Amino acid sequence: MPKISTKANDMPASPIRKLVPYAETAKKQGKIVYHLNIGQPDIETPEVALNAIKNMDRKVIEYSHSAGFESYRTNLAAYYQKTGINVNAEDILITTGGSEALIFGFMTTCDLGDEIIIPEPFYANYNGFAVTAGVNVVPVTSYIETGFALPPVEEIEKKITSKTKAIVICNPGNPTGYLYSKSELEQLRDIVKKHDLFLFADEVYREFCYDGAVPFSVMNLEGIEDNVIMIDSVSKRYSMCGARIGALITKNKEVMAAALKFGQARLSPPTIDQIASEAALNTPQSYFDNVVAEYVERRNIMVDGLNSIPGVFCPKPSGAFYCVAKFPVDNAEKFCQWLLEEFEFEGQTVMMAPANGFYSSKDAGTQEARIAYVLNQDSLRKAVICLGEALKVYPGRVEVGSTETAAHN
Amino acid sequence: MPKISTKANDMPASPIRKLVPYAETAKKQGKIVYHLNIGQPDIETPEVALNAIKNMDRKVIEYSHSAGFESYRTNLAAYYQKTGINVNAEDILITTGGSEALIFGFMTTCDLGDEIIIPEPFYANYNGFAVTAGVNVVPVTSYIETGFALPPVEEIEKKITSKTKAIVICNPGNPTGYLYSKSELEQLRDIVKKHDLFLFADEVYREFCYDGAVPFSVMNLEGIEDNVIMIDSVSKRYSMCGARIGALITKNKEVMAAALKFGQARLSPPTIDQIASEAALNTPQSYFDNVVAEYVERRNIMVDGLNSIPGVFCPKPSGAFYCVAKFPVDNAEKFCQWLLEEFEFEGQTVMMAPANGFYSSKDAGTQEARIAYVLNQDSLRKAVICLGEALKVYPGRVEVGSTETAAHN
Repeated sequence: MPKISTKANDMPASPIRKLVPYAETAKKQGKIVYHLNIGQPDIETPEVALNAIKNMDRKVIEYSHSAGFESYRTNLAAYYQKTGINVNAEDILITTGGSEALIFGFMTTCDLGDEIIIPEPFYANYNGFAVTAGVNVVPVTSYIETGFALPPVEEIEKKITSKTKAIVICNPGNPTGYLYSKSELEQLRDIVKKHDLFLFADEVYREFCYDGAVPFSVMNLEGIEDNVIMIDSVSKRYSMCGARIGALITKNKEVMAAALKFGQARLSPPTIDQIASEAALNTPQSYFDNVVAEYVERRNIMVDGLNSIPGVFCPKPSGAFYCVAKFPVDNAEKFCQWLLEEFEFEGQTVMMAPANGFYSSKDAGTQEARIAYVLNQDSLRKAVICLGEALKVYPGRVEVGSTETAAHN
Repeated sequence: MPKISTKANDMPASPIRKLVPYAETAKKQGKIVYHLNIGQPDIETPEVALNAIKNMDRKVIEYSHSAGFESYRTNLAAYYQKTGINVNAEDILITTGGSEALIFGFMTTCDLGDEIIIPEPFYANYNGFAVTAGVNVVPVTSYIETGFALPPVEEIEKKITSKTKAIVICNPGNPTGYLYSKSELEQLRDIVKKHDLFLFADEVYREFCYDGAVPFSVMNLEGIEDNVIMIDSVSKRYSMCGARIGALITKNKEVMAAALKFGQARLSPPTIDQIASEAALNTPQSYFDNVVAEYVERRNIMVDGLNSIPGVFCPKPSGAFYCVAKFPVDNAEKFCQWLLEEFEFEGQTVMMAPANGFYSSKDAGTQEARIAYVLNQDSLRKAVICLGEALKVYPGRVEVGSTETAAHN
């Protein structure tokens, strides 16, 4: 039997989906499982998008242009301009989800063995895209105690070698929900300018900013127009995760031309989904106002609830719909598995994503878990109660701070 | 300004879309351009598929399972069983087009610098997927004089090195339309068994076989179940190129588990398109009977028409909707460009894909072009007339056979 590749062996399994078999067993046993593990919002897709699909009058579902429909790119550019980001249609390559945009971006900028620096914890699939592109992830650790703020410039610069090609951020962040300030982004600008690096920014959660916080796009950092590659997606913005429509956006003509070659090889992003995504651009502002208000409530229920449990610490994030909490447990992965396998409270339990899968440094984040607050408020309240009850009886409970040193290494 | 990667520089531009700017200019000048360059059929998508999209009653367009909806995989397995291919749902990974299935397949089986052997001419984007995966394509040349039959076993074995991981075929073939016989496939079986290689077969044109020819799937080759990876797609079968739904199919559990990790990283194939693809499985047989009858007519108009032009040779293929013709010209790429830039006959001209882009060997196929007979019969007749007129006046016309030796090197 022929052997699979080293790359295939190196490819990480998804930390978000790793515990799925345990959840399936729990559900077969009749338990209600509150899914806080995956960022699949329950928010309804805007009607304008659903109607565009229903009313599609094409007789043939044809390929689009490899860069996406021109009308969609033009209208998408108008959306960016409205949000204060000066982008034209030719700066946009429509991709099959933000995932493909990241893969095209890594492939276009990095060769085998090149390095990309990412503040950790970071969106776990960046690891998968890095393995796919043959690139090494070099983490620079951010800490729960500071709410996962950008690590100091000198910590980042320490990681730069002759192999470093890019810095990658997610803003607002998955899994942390942290929103970088303009001044933090300017620090990144100075670093990439000084060392001639690319700066990737995954800004798919742009619309999800709370308490009056306003996101600052890397596209608006002056003097590094050729360094910046923005990643975007309709998945979260319009609750259209299954549409698989994203975008790679850059002013760098050479990057755009090269990324298009990868786009041509796979022919085109999906047609129907582009039609839905273009229609979604007409979603009324009231939709977002309602969604943001709902997420603020959900965040408060979840984060305040977590912090009211003895020994649990969870910084309150300003964006996205995730938070990372630290639990008084021996090991968060064991705890998450135990929640599904061993625990129930009034027939219910909780599924979370252990945070170690979001760190690249070994043994970092071992007491932490990522929580996606994408369920209705009632379910979130019940999930918090479950977690409180669970921590009263979990056999691996430890005193707060007892493994803190290990987690920082 | 930071530099793009070597990989990005190595990435080939699409030979099918390369001449697009010339076609756009021709159309702006008022010329009618018959597009024989791209395999975008004008056949209508089955109504069952279009209706499934129109009647979709989901309120949230959610992710599917990373391997695709279970119901779709189950029903797709039933389709294979009906066509005599013994496949179960767990042998199927739903992908974003056949393109993604090939990329996952190459990534799963090959590391940087590994080699895959492909009979040329081959579907040009295999080059792009190979660059994406860091794999080297080793061509073994097939010839227009034999209708692009499988090269002799000894020619294939000559190419095998310690780096060889797989043989890749497309059956029926794009760009040749050639349908491999069972005996040719058994020769491949013996080679991959002897040398412990993977055998990829892109069988997306399975339904398009003519003159009573019956395709034989690699999945039915006995004794190499763990070597075989079949690639499939709904694009051509249901004229749903824009749906971007394909599949990677294998009995090799290790390959399937590894490919799924690449699938998890990109979350899921598109949801709406899977719903359409699942519904398309209920397309009545009469749809295919009509489509096949139509393509036989089209093929005959095109191939017989080409062969009636002095100096042109085009073998008559048994499958797909492409043919490769040899023209009495100095260089087919120049000829194709000249057709768009300089030529017109009664306000019309023809766009073809120069075949050199489908060969990996330098200078192979320089007098050949790929033709997709995907237009209505009237347009195809006019296109043949155009080509005949064009060859009367093309300044680079040469005597038949004058560069034949070069083409074989």
